[in-house]
Amino acid sequence: MRAPWVTYRPELKVLDCTVRDGGLINDHQFDNAFVRAVYRACIDAGIDYMEIGYKNSKKIFSRDRFGAWKHSDEDDIRRAIGEKDPSVKLCAMADATKSDYHEDILPRDQSVLDVIRVAMYVNQIPTAVDMIKDAHDKGYEVTANLMAVSVVQEPELDEALEALAATPAATIVVVDSFGALYAEQIEILVRKYRKAIEGTGKEVGIHAHNNQQLAFANTIEAIIHGANRADATMGGLGRGAGNCPMELLLGFLRNPKFHLRPVYQFLQEQVAPLHKTMQWGALVPYNITGQLNQHPRAAIGFLAGEDGDKCLDFYDRCLREE
Amino acid sequence: MRAPWVTYRPELKVLDCTVRDGGLINDHQFDNAFVRAVYRACIDAGIDYMEIGYKNSKKIFSRDRFGAWKHSDEDDIRRAIGEKDPSVKLCAMADATKSDYHEDILPRDQSVLDVIRVAMYVNQIPTAVDMIKDAHDKGYEVTANLMAVSVVQEPELDEALEALAATPAATIVVVDSFGALYAEQIEILVRKYRKAIEGTGKEVGIHAHNNQQLAFANTIEAIIHGANRADATMGGLGRGAGNCPMELLLGFLRNPKFHLRPVYQFLQEQVAPLHKTMQWGALVPYNITGQLNQHPRAAIGFLAGEDGDKCLDFYDRCLREE
Repeated sequence: MRAPWVTYRPELKVLDCTVRDGGLINDHQFDNAFVRAVYRACIDAGIDYMEIGYKNSKKIFSRDRFGAWKHSDEDDIRRAIGEKDPSVKLCAMADATKSDYHEDILPRDQSVLDVIRVAMYVNQIPTAVDMIKDAHDKGYEVTANLMAVSVVQEPELDEALEALAATPAATIVVVDSFGALYAEQIEILVRKYRKAIEGTGKEVGIHAHNNQQLAFANTIEAIIHGANRADATMGGLGRGAGNCPMELLLGFLRNPKFHLRPVYQFLQEQVAPLHKTMQWGALVPYNITGQLNQHPRAAIGFLAGEDGDKCLDFYDRCLREE
Repeated sequence: MRAPWVTYRPELKVLDCTVRDGGLINDHQFDNAFVRAVYRACIDAGIDYMEIGYKNSKKIFSRDRFGAWKHSDEDDIRRAIGEKDPSVKLCAMADATKSDYHEDILPRDQSVLDVIRVAMYVNQIPTAVDMIKDAHDKGYEVTANLMAVSVVQEPELDEALEALAATPAATIVVVDSFGALYAEQIEILVRKYRKAIEGTGKEVGIHAHNNQQLAFANTIEAIIHGANRADATMGGLGRGAGNCPMELLLGFLRNPKFHLRPVYQFLQEQVAPLHKTMQWGALVPYNITGQLNQHPRAAIGFLAGEDGDKCLDFYDRCLREE
């Protein structure tokens, strides 16, 4: 009987996407104090990467309506984080077809960012490939985040992985946008992604959502099967059911470079008050959309309404509209 | 690539322990309407077993302080459920050293109960073996629930399993009382339990707690590795972090005999109001005791206090007292 979880894999790196994914709840309106507190917590906790927001279009997402972390302008980032600490790589996400990446993403030597994460749906692979090349040519580390993989057909996925494996992206991330996948499916996907990148030096990542209370479990599952990049958020903060909670992930990892106390400090000081104004977590309507392998938008809308605690009504509606 | 989760295993049976485990929050004071609603939901959902409470001692747990489901007297059960439906087997749990089982557990032909679940710690195996024999001789189906297995040493566990395998218990349950186990550990335990009962015709069960948001994931893991008896509760209701949520478990199982809608109806009508007066779920203090492989009692006490949202204070205290 072996107990591999008692030791650790030094090459495993953790990314915090609290501001980027949590910002989907509040139109990326987090104030500078909150963002700086996330940054401090990442530094103190030994977290490898912090994703601070999107690099998305100001035409599609106006500055009037959306907060700074939808666009992650250089000045806004510098103002929020103060002096940069080289121990945490700063990332921003750019959505295929929603980003003016040629203009808005500066050459890396003019930017405080280290990593561009390119997010795409499977029908946007050619745009994403161009974005990956653009960011890489500008000097960034790049990741490819193929979203909503639970609704991608296998031949399409194989084709997409072949295209992404040929790009200079350093990491390809298994993204369970709908929180629909069970452990056995995670295993199959991680194995497939690893096979697709064999010999390229790339890594496989995992980004799980908590619709079925499986975000942490599926992150562990992906790690067991060789994913070396794991996404998590403080308190699981994130759109809808939220993400893999950082406090659980770091509690599982055994690398002594990680420290839990700064995460709990952040939870006590910053996340506990948020529960009064923001809602996230594996509520029953998210369980239902997760089980149905659907985008959580219907559940988000339902929970915001007056009858948000009537999960049977929501279930019946989902079945009628299936 | 195979997708075994698309089909189902007919021999897999589900047990609802909402009243028994949820009752640990409110000293088993659920009223008859609630218990009857659980019973109706179990019947309508196709659930195989319902555990209605404990058969524990009235000397240790006085009727003044504790509700009916601490003792599960025949009259109280009959009054609550009304006419018995043979499709759901009724269970009660008896704790080793806390039950006057010789007197309080009637012969089955005088009882509305079908199953006695004997719960024990590893130092109570001889008492438990006598209880199992007593219940079996009285005509019941019997299960052996060895609690807190995450703190049992392997030689003790081997000895305990050998003793339990020799009893007439029909099922031996892997019980993760502290919600401390990860999937790999569940796999190892289920394999070990299966090996211990090989050739006896017994089944292995799983009873998971949600301290680390892993109750559902670990229940799936146990099922994948051959557990054919799975415990869950409506809405995950249960002491501390609660249990594997029935709505998630039935959503995962594909046996058409199971129906989700009655569960969601129960959640909407009975569980949603409870959130106003009872607290359970994978709150951060439970994450911490789960990670530390400790009984959740310290977290329960902390959360009931004024500073219950100060998870850093709780973390620091746990480390000081470790």
